[in-house]
Amino acid sequence: MVKLIYCINRKPGMSVEEFQRYWRETHGPIAARLPGLRRYVQCHTLPELYTGKNTPAYDGAAELWFDDMAMLQQAMASPELKAAREDERNFVDHSRTFSIVTEEKLVVE
Amino acid sequence: MVKLIYCINRKPGMSVEEFQRYWRETHGPIAARLPGLRRYVQCHTLPELYTGKNTPAYDGAAELWFDDMAMLQQAMASPELKAAREDERNFVDHSRTFSIVTEEKLVVE
Repeated sequence: MVKLIYCINRKPGMSVEEFQRYWRETHGPIAARLPGLRRYVQCHTLPELYTGKNTPAYDGAAELWFDDMAMLQQAMASPELKAAREDERNFVDHSRTFSIVTEEKLVVE
Repeated sequence: MVKLIYCINRKPGMSVEEFQRYWRETHGPIAARLPGLRRYVQCHTLPELYTGKNTPAYDGAAELWFDDMAMLQQAMASPELKAAREDERNFVDHSRTFSIVTEEKLVVE
């Protein structure tokens, strides 16, 4: 299995609460349609960490698992990915977005 | 549960293979001693993605789960964390390291 980690920030002017709600309730079901997607977890930065002048490095990380690189590449070329990318315009500021494709090594279960 | 995501890069001059071996075989068991650690996964950027001029954004992401913020903070203040940080000098370049503390929202199981 390969695991894509995709770190994102919310659009300027959007509250953390709005961002988290949109990501989970609206975007989640859209991204969930990606072909070959074996598992999909959204990691939401804890709201209580936005205190005073403290700005977390990212508002969250999406994690998507596929059987292998070929399946990931198929998903990335799919119309479902295009739809998900289009929906990101509604809540993601891509100026600092990045992704890495990884293999998990379990150390402590 | 809270989940710490910690994105890291290898020291200059270290190969991807050396970095991954050190991280897994030497650092993994050291970090695994953190008090209150419920789960620990290392996500290693796929070696085949280092091609030509292509440089992945990060060499990997460590993911550490704790029961709650209080347990995470205890771990961060522990001598075991100090030992893990000291060992990082052997393989991590911290110029772009960042971490976020998150809550997981499962979308597709």
